[in-house]
Amino acid sequence: MSAPHRRLDVLVDSVRRLQRMGATSNLINLLQKQHPADLAQILNELVDRDRAAVFHLLVERNSRLAMEALSELGPEMGAELLADRPPEDLARLLQELPSDDVAAILDNLPEELSAAVLELMARKGGEDVGSLLEYDERTAGRIMNPDVFALTEDLTVGQAITELQQARDVEMVFYLYVVDSRRHLVGVVSLRRLLLVRPDTPLKHVMSTDLISVRDDTDQEEVARHVASYNLLAIPVVDEENKLVGIITVDDVIDVIKDEATEDIYRLGGLTSEDRVFSPARDSLKRRLPWLLVNLVTAFVAASVVKVFEGTIGAFTALAVFMPVVAGMGGNAATQTLTVIVRGLALGELTWSNTRKALFKEALVGVGNGAAVGAVAMLGAWALQGNLALGLVLGVAMIINMFVAATAGTLIPLGLKALKVDPALASSVFITTLTDVFGFLSFLGLGTAFLRFLHQAG
Amino acid sequence: MSAPHRRLDVLVDSVRRLQRMGATSNLINLLQKQHPADLAQILNELVDRDRAAVFHLLVERNSRLAMEALSELGPEMGAELLADRPPEDLARLLQELPSDDVAAILDNLPEELSAAVLELMARKGGEDVGSLLEYDERTAGRIMNPDVFALTEDLTVGQAITELQQARDVEMVFYLYVVDSRRHLVGVVSLRRLLLVRPDTPLKHVMSTDLISVRDDTDQEEVARHVASYNLLAIPVVDEENKLVGIITVDDVIDVIKDEATEDIYRLGGLTSEDRVFSPARDSLKRRLPWLLVNLVTAFVAASVVKVFEGTIGAFTALAVFMPVVAGMGGNAATQTLTVIVRGLALGELTWSNTRKALFKEALVGVGNGAAVGAVAMLGAWALQGNLALGLVLGVAMIINMFVAATAGTLIPLGLKALKVDPALASSVFITTLTDVFGFLSFLGLGTAFLRFLHQAG
Repeated sequence: MSAPHRRLDVLVDSVRRLQRMGATSNLINLLQKQHPADLAQILNELVDRDRAAVFHLLVERNSRLAMEALSELGPEMGAELLADRPPEDLARLLQELPSDDVAAILDNLPEELSAAVLELMARKGGEDVGSLLEYDERTAGRIMNPDVFALTEDLTVGQAITELQQARDVEMVFYLYVVDSRRHLVGVVSLRRLLLVRPDTPLKHVMSTDLISVRDDTDQEEVARHVASYNLLAIPVVDEENKLVGIITVDDVIDVIKDEATEDIYRLGGLTSEDRVFSPARDSLKRRLPWLLVNLVTAFVAASVVKVFEGTIGAFTALAVFMPVVAGMGGNAATQTLTVIVRGLALGELTWSNTRKALFKEALVGVGNGAAVGAVAMLGAWALQGNLALGLVLGVAMIINMFVAATAGTLIPLGLKALKVDPALASSVFITTLTDVFGFLSFLGLGTAFLRFLHQAG
Repeated sequence: MSAPHRRLDVLVDSVRRLQRMGATSNLINLLQKQHPADLAQILNELVDRDRAAVFHLLVERNSRLAMEALSELGPEMGAELLADRPPEDLARLLQELPSDDVAAILDNLPEELSAAVLELMARKGGEDVGSLLEYDERTAGRIMNPDVFALTEDLTVGQAITELQQARDVEMVFYLYVVDSRRHLVGVVSLRRLLLVRPDTPLKHVMSTDLISVRDDTDQEEVARHVASYNLLAIPVVDEENKLVGIITVDDVIDVIKDEATEDIYRLGGLTSEDRVFSPARDSLKRRLPWLLVNLVTAFVAASVVKVFEGTIGAFTALAVFMPVVAGMGGNAATQTLTVIVRGLALGELTWSNTRKALFKEALVGVGNGAAVGAVAMLGAWALQGNLALGLVLGVAMIINMFVAATAGTLIPLGLKALKVDPALASSVFITTLTDVFGFLSFLGLGTAFLRFLHQAG
């Protein structure tokens, strides 16, 4: 119960050992005793080949447990483990999972295979999955579970409890949604509330009609924000006519929150969200290269600025020594501002109405930090090169560049958001270019203007 | 119910208008009808002065609702809104909130004030908060709610339901924890299960003893990982003797997940986690400056490397033009690798056992991308300067630097983790220094070695 991580390490070792020894039945026994989430962790720790072998073994003996573990592994790795099985096999195995998980896995399988599986599943009455896949990616419809337990409004509390007792295994029941005869969502009642009133009370009298729902086409990030800010355990999903079509539970919301955070972190780092630690090297290479090439173009833009001042550098080479300082510090200051602004937008703290305040604040911080860092840099350059004029040129250039960094770091993500482009995605490339260009322009420009003083001082 | 964001905008406008008009009673009526989470959103949208005024108004009329909204605003802003009230007032108001929220708010108040409030609250029997504050920050004990509803194991199901019906408002009841006579945690039973069995069944027979709990000193990030991976709605917290001391619900876990993601994003961006969009400029400046100064030192290290080659640059100034390209691209490639590795560590995908695989992969991607980007850069430099030898020097330097970037981007965060330093915090400064130093070293070093060819080609 305690120190579960150490326990897992021991388990992984045992699994590896039993597998190496070929002690299949011992291995199966050990695996069968685990929670699906722990099994997923164990599978995650194994190298690809072992993972496939252990999963294969488990599927043969306890396909339900195997599939539950697979769904905990996430759709990418899940699809990888399933990809080499025939469609008939997959259709049978996937029936063990709730349809939102199936939809996510099918999304990650090769298109032909997933189409074949979908057809087989539909024939067996699994039309749920097909209809989930009709919703756009990243919408409430796509991540909801269509298997939602609902009570009709004309029941009594006693009848409701009986219905609940007879219900087959539905996903986490704690809010009971109440619908009218045409399945319009009309109310909600908690399980606890049912226990507190007399059984002959009409459900209508105990249900709350003040309930929060989302439309099936709502963006998943907004769904997550709802569930998080209203502290819900689940949220009902309705179609455009307010008919109840599904439920999204808080565990799915946690996955969304993690995925969206990963996406933001990745985009700020110049990565696409599919890139994982153990994506094949070939895929990672292909995914990262375009971004690097975009950056290469912008680096050449910065280089062209330097080229304009080649004469100045030839006349006073010490300027080249401090070029990295100006550009680097501008980049760092810009990254700080950008990070605060992008995260503020993601968390909903920064909105259109308080934009001006944010801009003013960041500009102030930029100038303040520029002055402090510029002063230190001035002294550093003076000490290193024994040239006060060079130090002054460096210091002033840094103040200018850090002001540009702060302003651009605020305006660019806000501008991209206004254009409905993800601010995390494209901001850093624009801003690096800007701080490089303005940094070199101000530093080498000032250097050119005061070249005479640089020589006198040196 | 739908388009809640647009609805909120309208609300915020109404609040602003009513306040400007001084229509206090209309304003109060409007505010009273809102959900605490919506009130928090509205308060968040207002400028500081209006926020304080609206909150003040609401506290007078409906202090419970006001405090609920305040707790949704988060402890920082919450503390800000309360800071100018006398301790007696605060002690009374804070009694409206669950003690985990109180502890978080007290943490953000000036120390003297929070000590005074704590003493007043303790006198009125609120020793819960004081004991929460005795736990270390970021542990289960600190974020748990000590007000946990528990049943004793010798009850029957019928008695348990009666107890539940009589319980006062406890936080989200859905798992019912079962304890022995000395409050050791022995089992769990779901509300739904209680409905399914005969009332005279002993609780012992229906409870599950296979339950997941955490110790009060467990790190909050690990608590979140547990709740997320086992899809729990709440997790019981026990002390070292396995006595039930509190409960952590999934809504608290969502806050932890968001905070930890923000922290990672911030640390990768060179920020401390307290820095927010609307922190006062003075605070932001003070928080960002140390990081910038550290970066300044490393920028000077890079500058010193360039200084070694000042002679070469003087002899062939075009080298200075491409310095930003080498350093910038190394930095970009390093950021990509670093992001994948840090996020992989945070999500638990990357563990000690699969480190070698990750390193090998990243090195491969680094060389591959280096070759591709280096080739394009070579052609670019050839086109821009008409000097093939310069292009070759640039291309080879970039391949070297991107290999260094990939290797360091993997090894440094892993190394920091081994040293129990947060890999997100310190990695980027080390890596930028490394890629700058190695970039300039390889580019200017190769330039020096092949200076003759550069002149011949140019």
